[in-house]
Amino acid sequence: MTEIKATNITWHEGHVGREEREGLLKQKGALIWMTGLSGSGKSTVAYTLEHALMQQGRLAYVLDGDNIRHGLNKNLGFSPEDRTENIRRIGEVGKLFADTGVIAVTACISPYRADLDIVRELMGEGNYFEIYFEAPLEVCEKRDPKGLYKKARAGEIKGFTGIDAPYEAPEKAEMVIRTDQLSPQEATIKLIEMLESAGKLGA
Amino acid sequence: MTEIKATNITWHEGHVGREEREGLLKQKGALIWMTGLSGSGKSTVAYTLEHALMQQGRLAYVLDGDNIRHGLNKNLGFSPEDRTENIRRIGEVGKLFADTGVIAVTACISPYRADLDIVRELMGEGNYFEIYFEAPLEVCEKRDPKGLYKKARAGEIKGFTGIDAPYEAPEKAEMVIRTDQLSPQEATIKLIEMLESAGKLGA
Repeated sequence: MTEIKATNITWHEGHVGREEREGLLKQKGALIWMTGLSGSGKSTVAYTLEHALMQQGRLAYVLDGDNIRHGLNKNLGFSPEDRTENIRRIGEVGKLFADTGVIAVTACISPYRADLDIVRELMGEGNYFEIYFEAPLEVCEKRDPKGLYKKARAGEIKGFTGIDAPYEAPEKAEMVIRTDQLSPQEATIKLIEMLESAGKLGA
Repeated sequence: MTEIKATNITWHEGHVGREEREGLLKQKGALIWMTGLSGSGKSTVAYTLEHALMQQGRLAYVLDGDNIRHGLNKNLGFSPEDRTENIRRIGEVGKLFADTGVIAVTACISPYRADLDIVRELMGEGNYFEIYFEAPLEVCEKRDPKGLYKKARAGEIKGFTGIDAPYEAPEKAEMVIRTDQLSPQEATIKLIEMLESAGKLGA
């Protein structure tokens, strides 16, 4: 180590580790993956959680499936192959965020179990929290916040999950949330308790 | 806003903005893009900068071109099209990092000017700092830290930048660094001064 006094910097060899970034942030990086049908409440809870964590001084960031489809994944469609690549890329970005020490939250339908298993494997033990938003199709279709079910029923959208494309319910989810039974705030409290138990919110 | 006293959380409507995350971190997000031939010193300076910023309590993260090629971009090769897509994806990830309030630093050859112009446009004014590592090919080839020039000269690697693939020197770089004239520490001090001038390290 060489000290250049004028700038008050101590020069280190090697790379900054994840632990050092986590120490700076006083939290531990993670990827919280919210999966479920369109209209199951994923995004609402994701943003409510982001707000609640911020209020506690935690750095969280929502990797919103819709937004990412307009940016990083704008060259992908909705074929099974493209959906798989969509999930893979978001998983890789989530891994970079967790390595930075950030609590990343992603809300995207992610209908194929095998795709989520790849993300789980990629993230490694203790870094990945799969949250299944279990909601009956009828409930989601009635909510239809983006008017997409209506278009899918009218045949204006093809390959829409729950209508003419499958949704494989997760079998290994760390938590199941039913937004017909819990408010976004109640769901958020459960998620914060989960993160606390996992040691993610410690100093 | 509804307060649930037991958890000490105030519930907000809407999304957390970039400004709130930057306020938490007491810094402003940015993407510092280091471009130059293999062996021009990009990675060394990137990691030295990351260390120096960390020591000042700043959250920085190196999006290393080599590492990302083993993860997010592992399905890309070195054709012009794939190099363009490689840069595009790293740019999109850098944008997410900057939006999180992180100072992202990327070190990758990025030989095509047009690709960097796309990233510059994507990031928007004040968020993007292009750093050109200007170094004569002879110097880089003599350093050859990964033994790649030797392999390229022997024909074992095809399409290697500087040997049988072009490198277009940037024309709009925010800073030019010559590592045959500056140590990594000296280069880092210049970069920190640049970030300070741009208001990125303020509270």
